[in-house]
Amino acid sequence: MEDLQTLFSPRSVALVGIPRSFKIGTLFLMALKDQGFAGPIYPVNPNATEIDGLRSYPRVADLPDPVDMAIVMVPKARVMDVLEDCARKNVKIVILYTSGYGESGEREGLDEQERIKEVARKGGFRLLGPNCMGVHSSSAGLAFFPEMPRESGSVGLISQSGSLCNLLMKAFEPRKLFLRHAVSYGNGCDVDLPELLEWMGRQPDIRMICAYTEGVRDGRSLARAMETIAGRKPLIMWKVGRTAAGQRAAASHTGSLAGDENMWKALFQQNGVLDVSDLEEMMDLVMAAHYLPWEGKGRIVLVSGPGGPVVSAADAAERWGLTMASLGEETRKRLNASLPATGTSYRNPVDVGLSASFELNLYLDTLQTLTEDRNVDAIVMLGGGISEETNQVYLEGLMKIGKATEKSVIAVAYPGFVQLEDWLEPLCGAGIPVYPTPERALRAYARIRQFVDFRDRRTGTATR
Amino acid sequence: MEDLQTLFSPRSVALVGIPRSFKIGTLFLMALKDQGFAGPIYPVNPNATEIDGLRSYPRVADLPDPVDMAIVMVPKARVMDVLEDCARKNVKIVILYTSGYGESGEREGLDEQERIKEVARKGGFRLLGPNCMGVHSSSAGLAFFPEMPRESGSVGLISQSGSLCNLLMKAFEPRKLFLRHAVSYGNGCDVDLPELLEWMGRQPDIRMICAYTEGVRDGRSLARAMETIAGRKPLIMWKVGRTAAGQRAAASHTGSLAGDENMWKALFQQNGVLDVSDLEEMMDLVMAAHYLPWEGKGRIVLVSGPGGPVVSAADAAERWGLTMASLGEETRKRLNASLPATGTSYRNPVDVGLSASFELNLYLDTLQTLTEDRNVDAIVMLGGGISEETNQVYLEGLMKIGKATEKSVIAVAYPGFVQLEDWLEPLCGAGIPVYPTPERALRAYARIRQFVDFRDRRTGTATR
Repeated sequence: MEDLQTLFSPRSVALVGIPRSFKIGTLFLMALKDQGFAGPIYPVNPNATEIDGLRSYPRVADLPDPVDMAIVMVPKARVMDVLEDCARKNVKIVILYTSGYGESGEREGLDEQERIKEVARKGGFRLLGPNCMGVHSSSAGLAFFPEMPRESGSVGLISQSGSLCNLLMKAFEPRKLFLRHAVSYGNGCDVDLPELLEWMGRQPDIRMICAYTEGVRDGRSLARAMETIAGRKPLIMWKVGRTAAGQRAAASHTGSLAGDENMWKALFQQNGVLDVSDLEEMMDLVMAAHYLPWEGKGRIVLVSGPGGPVVSAADAAERWGLTMASLGEETRKRLNASLPATGTSYRNPVDVGLSASFELNLYLDTLQTLTEDRNVDAIVMLGGGISEETNQVYLEGLMKIGKATEKSVIAVAYPGFVQLEDWLEPLCGAGIPVYPTPERALRAYARIRQFVDFRDRRTGTATR
Repeated sequence: MEDLQTLFSPRSVALVGIPRSFKIGTLFLMALKDQGFAGPIYPVNPNATEIDGLRSYPRVADLPDPVDMAIVMVPKARVMDVLEDCARKNVKIVILYTSGYGESGEREGLDEQERIKEVARKGGFRLLGPNCMGVHSSSAGLAFFPEMPRESGSVGLISQSGSLCNLLMKAFEPRKLFLRHAVSYGNGCDVDLPELLEWMGRQPDIRMICAYTEGVRDGRSLARAMETIAGRKPLIMWKVGRTAAGQRAAASHTGSLAGDENMWKALFQQNGVLDVSDLEEMMDLVMAAHYLPWEGKGRIVLVSGPGGPVVSAADAAERWGLTMASLGEETRKRLNASLPATGTSYRNPVDVGLSASFELNLYLDTLQTLTEDRNVDAIVMLGGGISEETNQVYLEGLMKIGKATEKSVIAVAYPGFVQLEDWLEPLCGAGIPVYPTPERALRAYARIRQFVDFRDRRTGTATR
């Protein structure tokens, strides 16, 4: 597995086929500079002697030093020559951006894909792609687009699609979710999903793994890889190509064979994989996995000022198999004493009443009281103030109480009430995940509980 | 049904129990002033002679003129006297904000609710509530909160919960969805969901109805009301209290008996009701119903620059029973000629490639071509530029082409790519609904197709 270590932390990079003037390919160089890649960068272009201030070389063979990684973006007709050069130069990893192989759906493309795979095998280098964007790893100074997050976190991201890899990272950013390593593997003709999963599974600095895939060639390797992760790290997987229409789309996107739906479902179930079906669900789950403790019994309490939204939330809690906490005697007494007598409820859901929008302590004292109840594991707060000032009081109270408790505190920024975008950074910064609706918050919490329950069953650890 | 006409357009309003200084109750007066209510407003408070510049009266009996509507917010102990005063004064409609009745879950509250209902019946006035916020109708100058939308639209909103009524209106606003009439009916002890539905069903200026309900007393009236709307107007209904936990929450919120889940499901199916389960789904559907034509065969085409998201979208289309359009010969020729040769696909999903983020015409020419294809009913566009300027070019192109075509054009503001909030107003202003993900766009489109199909089956009209 030495090879994949180099994929995520090469000491030097050659950019083969990088354009002389600004085109898509230029982004690879901009990205490395933007992330401050520390090793040497070698532009390779037969028609240039210098590109963007760096000395450029006509061919890989001309490079003055050994090179760990070559990012190859030459036109398809020149790919074979370049790969043979890479083999002669003892390059360890080739990332092949060029497309038009298996995903073309034509015999020729498929044959060529087999041939490049063979060159890699004989040449002793590993190949990522073709038709991929490569690796993002801020700790190694690697990226494939400029202006991407520079912070390094504890999430591993494997995405067959380069654009989704990029979009997910950008969507994670305001949620303060940062990647340890992210990789787009395209057609996956050599380095494929199973090996990437297994490698990330073994990295101690990766706490959870998100994966987007359109299919896999080797089901057995996939099963083995999942088995190594099962119950150890949350694996949140977005598998597409699950219908006939999706399979056709996947075939023309990365040439993937989507595989048997029943096989995937069985793999997910056996290994406690958190199966998601769109980007929002993936974001929601990784936020919950990242910010909430993987402990407790999953007993939730809903707190709200507006009365309507939590009735639906109670439905959602039951549908997701969560337990509505039975509040302790002491809690009920304290809430009864602190909340106004009418238009409120100190049962679960706790309705703090409309006046809480003015008197924010009705929310905050309720939250504080609930954090002290041994019958409660998670508190979902749907509230806010009527002005920027009162909202600020609310936010700061949430952050303070959230930091001081070991229970799960989850915030809802309800549409029409507050703007989700305004709350993401402050609340996530304080370790409180925030969702647009209680239904989405509860789905995320319930799914993370599924991982916790799977882990506990597997390890035989009872948390009670 | 004379009475409900007065509920939505009273000529005069008394505010009974309005506080002298700023408290929650003051909001009712601020709201009427804010909407420019044209008739006389009579504050009623035994301890004031003037409130906020208006002459105040000690009791309803003291009012100098007849009054159409009384909004009553006195403490519970005084409600009975006030209602009897209203009866003597021949008030036509009482909106009872005061709470502590059926929703208290106690015998006493239930009995009192029966008694106020009886006073209304004998006194010859209709009662909305108790435990409700009342009516919002900009055309009549009515509202229950200040700083609410002043534009009048074609959507009818019935919400048992006052807070949800308010939150939905606010969430609709940036989507340029405005209410013709909105009503929060609380415990619904007299005026209840069926009558409100039937009344809105008969208003020619209401094109579609959204309803949030926790239960209903009279299932037969509900069935009759739904039958009058079925196939004539989309009825988008969020029924909560569908699980044991939700039913308990509904009981303590509005004292509702949630009713048999199977009865609700049967009613929804028989009447083509669009059943939704959270605020996002309701927003998504009403946006589609409002902006998209209720015609065509529902054949969709997906267009994207980023390749990954549309594979999942193709899955969603098939899961929702939509047809992926088979593009016409001429269309395929034109797309093949205009799109770059690699990294693109001119099949459906149409992949315009990564360079479209720079060359926005790749998106816009594709959209134009697809609007001219007779095999296409709806086009879902997932795109955007890499900068504010290019995004502006994209938006303006979408708006121009969207306005000129009779096909459904639907935009996706994908997380990590563009900010949904930035696009809502311009695109909705041009009649293009916009969603955060293609999955949500397709769900909304498919659900509106369900209404269209139901309508066509019912009326025997074939659109083909």
